[in-house]
Amino acid sequence: MKFVAEVLKLSKSATLRLEERRVLRQALIKHPFFPDLVDAYKLDKKFGEYEEGTLIVKTKNGYDLVRGYPKIRRALTLYPTIIKHFKEGNVVIEEKMNGYNVRVVHFGENIYAITRRGYICPYTTEKARNLIPFEFFKDNPDLMLCCEAVGEESPFVSKSVYGIKNLDFFVFDIRRRRTNEALSIKIKEKIAEEYSLNLSPILGVVDVKKAHEEVKSIVKELGKQEREGVVIKDEKMKKSPIKYTASQSNCSDLSYAFRFFNEYGKDFMFSRIVREAFQSFEFNESNDELNERCKRLGDAILKPMIESIREVSNGKKVVERNRLRFDSLEVFELFKKHVKKMGIEAEFSTPIEKNGKFVVYFDRIMMSTTDKIAAHLNGVLW
Amino acid sequence: MKFVAEVLKLSKSATLRLEERRVLRQALIKHPFFPDLVDAYKLDKKFGEYEEGTLIVKTKNGYDLVRGYPKIRRALTLYPTIIKHFKEGNVVIEEKMNGYNVRVVHFGENIYAITRRGYICPYTTEKARNLIPFEFFKDNPDLMLCCEAVGEESPFVSKSVYGIKNLDFFVFDIRRRRTNEALSIKIKEKIAEEYSLNLSPILGVVDVKKAHEEVKSIVKELGKQEREGVVIKDEKMKKSPIKYTASQSNCSDLSYAFRFFNEYGKDFMFSRIVREAFQSFEFNESNDELNERCKRLGDAILKPMIESIREVSNGKKVVERNRLRFDSLEVFELFKKHVKKMGIEAEFSTPIEKNGKFVVYFDRIMMSTTDKIAAHLNGVLW
Repeated sequence: MKFVAEVLKLSKSATLRLEERRVLRQALIKHPFFPDLVDAYKLDKKFGEYEEGTLIVKTKNGYDLVRGYPKIRRALTLYPTIIKHFKEGNVVIEEKMNGYNVRVVHFGENIYAITRRGYICPYTTEKARNLIPFEFFKDNPDLMLCCEAVGEESPFVSKSVYGIKNLDFFVFDIRRRRTNEALSIKIKEKIAEEYSLNLSPILGVVDVKKAHEEVKSIVKELGKQEREGVVIKDEKMKKSPIKYTASQSNCSDLSYAFRFFNEYGKDFMFSRIVREAFQSFEFNESNDELNERCKRLGDAILKPMIESIREVSNGKKVVERNRLRFDSLEVFELFKKHVKKMGIEAEFSTPIEKNGKFVVYFDRIMMSTTDKIAAHLNGVLW
Repeated sequence: MKFVAEVLKLSKSATLRLEERRVLRQALIKHPFFPDLVDAYKLDKKFGEYEEGTLIVKTKNGYDLVRGYPKIRRALTLYPTIIKHFKEGNVVIEEKMNGYNVRVVHFGENIYAITRRGYICPYTTEKARNLIPFEFFKDNPDLMLCCEAVGEESPFVSKSVYGIKNLDFFVFDIRRRRTNEALSIKIKEKIAEEYSLNLSPILGVVDVKKAHEEVKSIVKELGKQEREGVVIKDEKMKKSPIKYTASQSNCSDLSYAFRFFNEYGKDFMFSRIVREAFQSFEFNESNDELNERCKRLGDAILKPMIESIREVSNGKKVVERNRLRFDSLEVFELFKKHVKKMGIEAEFSTPIEKNGKFVVYFDRIMMSTTDKIAAHLNGVLW
């Protein structure tokens, strides 16, 4: 813990209090797969200037800090929100891909992938080591690649819309890892080209005064393709980005949340429902479009819940199943420990070897939803 | 406060602490319309055996107590919940009418109507004095009539489905006001006949083992008529009743809650959504029925929210408007004070005299929803 106090510039007792309040949490599973790390702690809440998910590590050579990815705020209306936020000049409209947020960094001689809450994920790290050239970190040791990890073989958000069978990384920000200062879009593009990194698609660069119209038509198009939405950014990255999503994506989130309705917060559901109303209003929808949206919303809420009830009535648990593919069984074992450390109740299938890789089904058990449904099916009152 | 301590059998300091914790609250507006009352306090939370909404009064002749109406628990599934709860014998299926819960009692020489939270409502009291024979209380001074106050001219829940243009009372329970002991259904029916009191319709008396089937077909029928649902009761009223509602009523609640989405709790919305899923599952719906339900749910959620957004974008406030009809302008003035005491922000139209009565529009201003919408329409981020 001494290194945490030093890195955060706190007294030892203040650091201990942070741990007691569970703001600070031990984050490393010691393992040969993480050879450069001696210890690591993460912030489970924003603390001072440090974002939630900030990781503080002790490496073989010293101490280090990787800042958490900042919360991106959301526009409920495109007009006048974008103009009000960015004021003038051009804004860049990037696709917000639907996966999970990963900061890819290096410690010592190896790449590490840190998920949003500040865990070093073995599965994601294994993929990052395969896909991201270490060269980049040799040349830019103080930078982190803020990526969306997307694909079908995702432990957290599995999507097939991007045509990625396994898992891949799409860089959306490059930031200084100790300060969170973001490089400009131009420099990000240059670096991506140099090191052959995937970028989240840049869909447009427009005058802020016209951005709401442009975003509206882009988001409608993305929605039709079941893609998530956009992030609107200042070209120089001096102002914080804002996000805006398609109705189909809000509904897809709602489907997920209502399928596991007792694990998910009511705020999560409520905020997504409210978005739908503002979007329908702003898009000035016809009666047909509105009715379609109502049906989409009703379907998204009700059908997954009924599916879960049906499963429990058939004696099954409510489960989120994801397919994973490991290079190494050692990493699979480590991933199991990682999932346990995250507090996830899980079951795994026996790995099956295919072309030198190991395919595993990762079942996340939703016990709270399962128990709640079982209680009502057995006659417990609300 | 001394009388409260005495009635609740508490020390004076314990009573003061209850008031400090805002469990206990002054509940009387002194007025010639309430001639029998010197003072009154109500419980804003359940306290010991005393229900929320319990009213403690000091009358000209002494102290008295009116217990709060107990919370009725809800079945999410009819089978096996009803059997599990009532075990054996007959259950009575009564219509749960959609109005507001009122306990009608007497103090001294007059009738008083107490709403769920324990307020003495001047509007409801005026109607109760017209419609309920004082004779009943002369003969049964220790009883209270637990009624649903329904009709179009309702300050709280206005509905036209019952064909009642003004406001009327339907007795669903007769209880001893100091103990909350409920009379059996038979005795309730006999008393209602004797004093010519309306009863909430009794829709069936069935063996508990068949009740789930009976309730299902009754609730489907009630739903088609936009009526709320049922309360299932033990004939002897020795076991607590349980309630179950039609989809149309859940959706009507949701419409209301989402129209005023920032005033209403997320729990209110969430619980009504979950009910829909359990009902659809238990009713074993066809695809067409399920799709209809999804559309009904989506409509109920989205359309009222969009209506509110549209109103605010047109520079109006989000308002719930109800038409009221007073016998006396004095009671109208008292009702205005009552509404203020309840913490409701309201505007009233100028009363218009019609056939010796005074028609008033009561606008309940939903400032939280209005402000939230206005903020997002003006570009504030979520």
